[in-house]
Amino acid sequence: MNKSLVLGIDIGGTNTKFGVVDSHGEILAQGSIITCETDDPHHFINRLDQALKPLFDKFNHENFIGIGVGAPNGNFYTGTIEMAPNLKWRGVVPLVSLIENKFKLKTVLTNDANAAAIGEMIYGHAKGMKNFIVITLGTGLGSGIVVNGELVYGHTGFAGELGHVTVMPEGRLCDGGRKGCLETYASATGIVKTVKDLLKDSSETSSLRKIEEKDLRSKHITEAALQGDAIALKAYDYTAAILGRALTDFVVFSSPEAIFLFGGLAQAKDVLFKPTKNYFENNLMNVFKNTVKLLPSGLPESDAAILGSAALIAKTNRI
Amino acid sequence: MNKSLVLGIDIGGTNTKFGVVDSHGEILAQGSIITCETDDPHHFINRLDQALKPLFDKFNHENFIGIGVGAPNGNFYTGTIEMAPNLKWRGVVPLVSLIENKFKLKTVLTNDANAAAIGEMIYGHAKGMKNFIVITLGTGLGSGIVVNGELVYGHTGFAGELGHVTVMPEGRLCDGGRKGCLETYASATGIVKTVKDLLKDSSETSSLRKIEEKDLRSKHITEAALQGDAIALKAYDYTAAILGRALTDFVVFSSPEAIFLFGGLAQAKDVLFKPTKNYFENNLMNVFKNTVKLLPSGLPESDAAILGSAALIAKTNRI
Repeated sequence: MNKSLVLGIDIGGTNTKFGVVDSHGEILAQGSIITCETDDPHHFINRLDQALKPLFDKFNHENFIGIGVGAPNGNFYTGTIEMAPNLKWRGVVPLVSLIENKFKLKTVLTNDANAAAIGEMIYGHAKGMKNFIVITLGTGLGSGIVVNGELVYGHTGFAGELGHVTVMPEGRLCDGGRKGCLETYASATGIVKTVKDLLKDSSETSSLRKIEEKDLRSKHITEAALQGDAIALKAYDYTAAILGRALTDFVVFSSPEAIFLFGGLAQAKDVLFKPTKNYFENNLMNVFKNTVKLLPSGLPESDAAILGSAALIAKTNRI
Repeated sequence: MNKSLVLGIDIGGTNTKFGVVDSHGEILAQGSIITCETDDPHHFINRLDQALKPLFDKFNHENFIGIGVGAPNGNFYTGTIEMAPNLKWRGVVPLVSLIENKFKLKTVLTNDANAAAIGEMIYGHAKGMKNFIVITLGTGLGSGIVVNGELVYGHTGFAGELGHVTVMPEGRLCDGGRKGCLETYASATGIVKTVKDLLKDSSETSSLRKIEEKDLRSKHITEAALQGDAIALKAYDYTAAILGRALTDFVVFSSPEAIFLFGGLAQAKDVLFKPTKNYFENNLMNVFKNTVKLLPSGLPESDAAILGSAALIAKTNRI
C-alpha cells in the first residue's frame, strides 16, 4: 500500500470520532471515544492512543501521511484550542503538539466548520470551486469560507464566525452578552426557541404541543414540518427569512459561487431550502442575482466530520 | 530609465484622472479629462489618447509596464464596465480591450475601492499585511477586501460591496429598491440625510441651519463638527454607531488585521474615528477584541485614486 492514508479526528463536545480515510475519500475504518472524561487533555491523548493503536497496526503506521483534527475553537495557526465553551479543558490546550508528539505524524487543526468546508472542497460538491461558503446549522451556526481556493483564517485564525453577525440589533441574547446574532435564530437552538414563542403566541393546533417544553428538540420540529404541521412550517419559514437575508450580506462580501447548508436543520430539505432560496434571491443586490447556488452538502451527514478533518491533510498534500 | 513606470487611471463619474507612477509610488506627472462628454466610450478613448500622448512622449512609451484602471463597476475578470450608475456609457463597455488596443500596454481594471485597497497594500499603511479591509466613505460606501494577501473578487468579480450589507431591515431606501443598506447611513449622502432629519426633529441651534437644505453637503457637516456644532457631532455619532457595529460583522467574516477608513467622512479624523472605535470594540465578539486596528489611509487623499489604479499593475508585476 502507498503512503496515502489520513487519520481524520473530529472532537465534539461529547464524543470524539476518528476514521482512516484513503485517497478516494473512502473511510476504511472508524471508531469513537468520549471526549472529556476529565479536564486533563493528556488523559484524552492517552485514551486516543489506546483507541488508535489497533488502526495503526492494521493499516501500518508507515502508510499514514498525517492527522487532520476538527475541534471547537481549533486554531489553524497556533495548533491550540482555547476557551472552547463545550469542552472541559481549560486554558490553552496545545493539541497539535500533543498529538504530533504521541503519534509522530504531521497534524493540522482547525474548527469543525472550517473542516467541513475543506471536506466539501476535497470530497464533496465544491470540487473545483474557488469561492464558496459552508454553513453548518447545528446546535449553533458554524461556517467555513473559501476565497481564491483557500480557507479564510484571517489574521487571528478565527475568521468565519458567521453565526455571530448581527441580524436583529435588539434581538435574542447570545453567549458573551451580544444581542441578535444569527445563530440565536438559525440553528437547532434557535428554531426550538422560535417554536416555543409561536406556541405561546397562538392557539393553533400542533403536534408539537404534545411534547413537554423542556424535551422539545429541533428534530421534532423537522419531523413535524415534513408532515405539514403549521407551527413547525411557520418556524422554518421564520428561520429561512432570517437566514436567507443574512446570506445576502455574505454574498456582497465574497461573491461565492455556492453556499452549502449542512447539519440538523438542512435535513428538512425543501422545507428549509425553498423558503431560504426565496428570501435570499428576493433580497440579493441585482448584480448578484442568479449567481449563487444554494446547495445541500455533498458529504453524507454521518461521515462528514471525519472526512472534513481528513481533508485538512489531503488538501495540504494534494493526495 | 528602466522599464518601471505605470500609468494609473481613475475613472470617476465626472472626471478621469491619470498619472505616471514610478516604482517608489511617486507620481511624476498627472492630468485629467472629463469622463463622459458623450455616451460613446470610443470618444472617451480618443480624448484619453490625446491627453496621454505628451506623457508617453516625455517618459518614453517603452518605459511603461502597464496601465491600471479604477472605475465604478469595473470587473477584474472580464475587463468590462457594466451598468455603472454614474457613467453615461450604456451596456457592456470592454474597457480593457479598448485601452490595450489603443495604447499597446497590459491593462488591469477593477473598481475604485478595490484599487484603493491594492494602493494601500503597495504604497500605503497596509504594506506587509495579508488580511485587511479598506472602506471608502464617499458619495456611497465602497470597499476592497484583502484575504491571504490577495484581493477578494469572488466568483463574479464583484465581491466587496460592503456598502450593501443590511444594517436596518426596514431602514432607508437604497438604489435598486433594497432597504437599510449600510451606505444609506455611512457615506456623504447618508450623513447629509441624518443631519436633515436631526434638524427637523429638534430645535437645537446649529450653524448648519444657515445652509439651505438643497445646498447642504457632507463637508459642511465635517467643518461644523470640527468646530463643536452639536447637531453635526450627533450626526457623526449616529453614523459611527451604525458603521462601528457593521464593521464587527466584517470582522467575524475575515478577521482582518486592520480596517482602513478613507474618503470624505474620514477627513473628520477623531470626530469619526473615536466614536467608531468605541462602538466597534464594544460590539466585537470576545475572541476578536483588540485584534483589529482601525486606521486612516496611508495614501494622501489627492493622490490615492491614481496610486490605487497604478498599484494594480505594480502588484501583478511586483515592481
